[in-house]
Amino acid sequence: MQKDGSRKISKAVISRLPAYYRNLHELLEKDITRISSEQLSRIMKTTASQVRQDLNHFGGFGQQGYGYNVTRLYEEIGKILGVEESHKVIIVGAGNITHALVNYAGFHDHGFDFICIFDRNPLTHGLAIGPVPVRPLNELPAFVRSNKVDIVTICVPREPAKIYAKKIYKLGLRSFWNFAHTDLSLPDDAFVKDVHLLDSVLELSYMINEKNIPVDK
Amino acid sequence: MQKDGSRKISKAVISRLPAYYRNLHELLEKDITRISSEQLSRIMKTTASQVRQDLNHFGGFGQQGYGYNVTRLYEEIGKILGVEESHKVIIVGAGNITHALVNYAGFHDHGFDFICIFDRNPLTHGLAIGPVPVRPLNELPAFVRSNKVDIVTICVPREPAKIYAKKIYKLGLRSFWNFAHTDLSLPDDAFVKDVHLLDSVLELSYMINEKNIPVDK
Repeated sequence: MQKDGSRKISKAVISRLPAYYRNLHELLEKDITRISSEQLSRIMKTTASQVRQDLNHFGGFGQQGYGYNVTRLYEEIGKILGVEESHKVIIVGAGNITHALVNYAGFHDHGFDFICIFDRNPLTHGLAIGPVPVRPLNELPAFVRSNKVDIVTICVPREPAKIYAKKIYKLGLRSFWNFAHTDLSLPDDAFVKDVHLLDSVLELSYMINEKNIPVDK
Repeated sequence: MQKDGSRKISKAVISRLPAYYRNLHELLEKDITRISSEQLSRIMKTTASQVRQDLNHFGGFGQQGYGYNVTRLYEEIGKILGVEESHKVIIVGAGNITHALVNYAGFHDHGFDFICIFDRNPLTHGLAIGPVPVRPLNELPAFVRSNKVDIVTICVPREPAKIYAKKIYKLGLRSFWNFAHTDLSLPDDAFVKDVHLLDSVLELSYMINEKNIPVDK
């Protein structure tokens, strides 16, 4: 941690934090309260030195020869990830993925509140998906100006996704959760987390050809 | 490529291939038929030397000072990813994510056919989600023995996910597309591609604290 309280951490480390958090939760469920970097590295499918290096970014929670206190590590990583805070999330697009997101209780349990869905289709306006109202897309700018919005979720096809993301960026939002099958091409100060479902199943398809053998895990 | 026709490629490279494929498709839509490794690296948000290294794994499709033929590169990566072949996919769990997957045409367009959904809940048996029938979970072993199944999609909560994945592994299946909020802990010869939605939004939540500044892209 820097003197001013800010942290300078690589995106690679950040991308592993949720998996640490998830696996530490599973350890606590099994009443495991202490773990060595070696044991944790096997769960995380990485090396013990990687684990030590990752966790040192956050001040380090371990003691030489004694291991990590699982409860403390879990709580601290949770704080770092902001799970104790509430995050207001809007969704662009009222399709199938939106239904799946809104209906999964896990998001709410970790502080993510879907507060409004915006869609272009007039047939969806005034409806609700789960408890979340669907409003006309052209009301989005006014909504963003008068409500706290932390994350915008993009659940529309490729071309509108790029267009809407740019417009929403101009409204001042910087955190995008993107389910469209494209990259959003936003300026560098936007943080975009992509969920490219087709990309992920294409990796499986690659592996199905048994002549394709990955050389490392 | 090895003499026996097999390829030995790291998982890191494999994980980038679908993004190459997707971006090359977008270039073709814009009638761009030739591209340098420098230009491609900007789209892929990596370095030109990384692009050249990645594509060299597949025999290399570029010519010094001339760039890559986009059509040829797109088609070759498509072949490598197996998009010309049909892949039979089953799903365990008939919930919201399953609805979203079955109703997204993009999978079918790239050779992924959802052929059957299995669920424990008797109320779902005999129903269909989109065109895909839902059958009792205890019929899964017989189904796998008498039908070609390439990929099993896990769309159930954590504990059943781990149990069912192990059972399905024992039936001989090796390619798992996992949407459960856990790691499946399967033997090393299983290939598991995880879609951890909560992990991905937790990364965004981390970034929302403006004191958290990533040091690289």
